[in-house]
Parts: sequence; C-alpha cells; structure tokens
Amino acid sequence: MLHIASDAFAARGYNNASLAEIAKQAGLTQAGVLHYFRSKALLLTSVLELRDQRDIEQLGPDRPQGLEFLRHLVDTALRNAEREGIVRLYAVLSAESVTDNHPAQDYFRDRYTGLRGFVADALRMACDLPDDRAAEAATAANAIIAVMDGLQVQWLLDPEAVDMAASTDLVVTSLLSTLAPQKFGSGTHH
Amino acid sequence: MLHIASDAFAARGYNNASLAEIAKQAGLTQAGVLHYFRSKALLLTSVLELRDQRDIEQLGPDRPQGLEFLRHLVDTALRNAEREGIVRLYAVLSAESVTDNHPAQDYFRDRYTGLRGFVADALRMACDLPDDRAAEAATAANAIIAVMDGLQVQWLLDPEAVDMAASTDLVVTSLLSTLAPQKFGSGTHH
Repeated sequence: MLHIASDAFAARGYNNASLAEIAKQAGLTQAGVLHYFRSKALLLTSVLELRDQRDIEQLGPDRPQGLEFLRHLVDTALRNAEREGIVRLYAVLSAESVTDNHPAQDYFRDRYTGLRGFVADALRMACDLPDDRAAEAATAANAIIAVMDGLQVQWLLDPEAVDMAASTDLVVTSLLSTLAPQKFGSGTHH
Repeated sequence: MLHIASDAFAARGYNNASLAEIAKQAGLTQAGVLHYFRSKALLLTSVLELRDQRDIEQLGPDRPQGLEFLRHLVDTALRNAEREGIVRLYAVLSAESVTDNHPAQDYFRDRYTGLRGFVADALRMACDLPDDRAAEAATAANAIIAVMDGLQVQWLLDPEAVDMAASTDLVVTSLLSTLAPQKFGSGTHH
C-alpha cells in the first residue's frame, strides 16, 4: 500500500496524485484507504516516514561520525543512482512542500534543520574546527545538502549527463580542503 | 497576465494551479486566456520564457566570461534572496518537471544542459584547464548549478537558516581551489 502511494506521489506529486487511483491500484476502496490512514495528508506522512526508517536502518545502529559521516553522504549519492523511485519521491515532494499550505512543509523544514545540524557537526569534527568557526561549518553544511538535492533533479532529467556521487565527492573534498587546508589541503589532490 | 500566472504556478505548482482562477484574477474569462495562450501548457512556457528574458537582460549584452561569470552566479544567489516569487517559481517547477508527462520537462532538461555547458566553460577558462580535464570541469559545473538549486528549497522553507550567496561563494571558491590550486590555492583564504 505505502509503496503504491509512494510511486503515485513520485510520478504526479502530492497535490496531483489521486487517492481514488492509489486505492484502486492497492485493490482497496477509497474508504478503505481512509480507514487506515484517515486522510491523504497522513498517507503522505506515512510514506515519508517509511523512507526515513529505511535510511536509518541502512545507516546501522552506530551512526558514523565526522569524516566517516561525510563519506557516508557520498555513498548515499552513489546508492541513490540505483533507486530512481525514492530519489524522485524526495525531489518532487521537497520542492512541492514550498507551495501554499502543503501538508509536508513542516516535515521538510524539520528534516533540513536536522540534516544541516548533522552535517555541520561532522564537518566541525572532521576539520577540528573551534567554536568561533561554527558559522563557516554551517555555510558548508548547507551547501553539501543543497548539492545532493540539486543533483537529483538534474540526474532525473538527464542521467547520462550527471554523476551524482562524483559531484558530491568533489564538493565535500573541496570544502574540507578550504575549511582545514593543513589537514585536507588541495596539494594532496594533484 | 503572465505575472498572475507566474504567482499561481509558484504558489500551487503547475498541475495544481487552476486556469479558471488565473483567468479570474486577470479579469478575463478562461476562454479569453486560451485565446491568447492556446493551452495551460503554453501559458507555462510563456511564463518561463519571460523569466529567462529578464535574466538575460540583467546579464547585459556582454555576457561575462570565465571567473567573471562564476562571480555573476554568486551575485545571482545574492539577488535571488530579494525575489522570493521567482525563486519559488523555479524551485517548484523544475522539480515538478520530473513528474510524468510534465509540459516543462524538455524546457528544464534543455535549460540544465545549457547551464552546465556555460559553467563548465567558465571553469575551464578561469582555471586554464587543458582539454583532458574537461570531465573534471563538468563534474564541478554540475555541482555549482546543483548547489544553487538545492539552497533555494532550503531557503524558501527557512530563510533565517540559509545564506544562499555565502554557501554558493564558498563552493565556487573551494572548487576553483581544487581545480587550480596554483592559481586559487586554499593557502590564500586563511
């Protein structure tokens, strides 16, 4: 049921997806779907939570820290090139969430706040940054999350032209080198 | 008329925006709008072309080259923080364009192909890269466009937490330093 709804939201966006059609594909009546999920908005929330659950499972009980977490993001970009459906779901819904009164607006706002914090912490640890450089780490963290998101839209439109993992890796490596040239200096790349 | 349609597409996405409502706000009948634009899809195309026209005007007749073009992208990110409506229009429509049978899919695919070429050319010129490093320039170019797009969604959801120009500048500067350490080495930043 949730996989059918996930495919429908990815293919048509939340607003344009039809609850009747999702129900039909799942072999249920619309009333049957609403019995379980109460509303289309709550069905969306369940789909998003399913995906997050999966990501946490793949991360394992010991969440990587510092440089290891940043490497995990590059691995995620690599793995995403094998799961077009989930990439499309997130690309479509995260952007649609900025439209008026979208039911996933708080979900995505909170998700980005959390992600920005994780990535900034990882950068500060990897680069041994003191507290007075927290703003710089935040600026870099926002950029790393943004590059991963932006690459997904380009890749969905033109997979041959975009290597998500290579571009993510280049940005992470270059930002580390800027934040901590002594430790990750660009002299080591060429 | 096009500004009203632009606001409606930004607020609700293309699929969910109502032609009847756009017509009403413009003081026209739906038949009147269709007389001028023929279809909702062609109205969308007109809105997107209007925005591109404006951007080209702002760029001036002498398009900047090389490093100057990359600086122009950072300026664009700075200027975008003052025009939320246009940022939202592009963020919503570019992601929505990956949904099934979206009328702007070719438009965005072609737009990204063109932008990737411009940015890759600018990087190669700025860094004096030889032809055998074209792939590296393309990887960096894709990342620069992606970071600008991804920052827009984060900024629309949480403007206080995201400085689009600062993050874009940090990525451009860091990539230049990685691609041409002799010319833009990170030793010059700290």
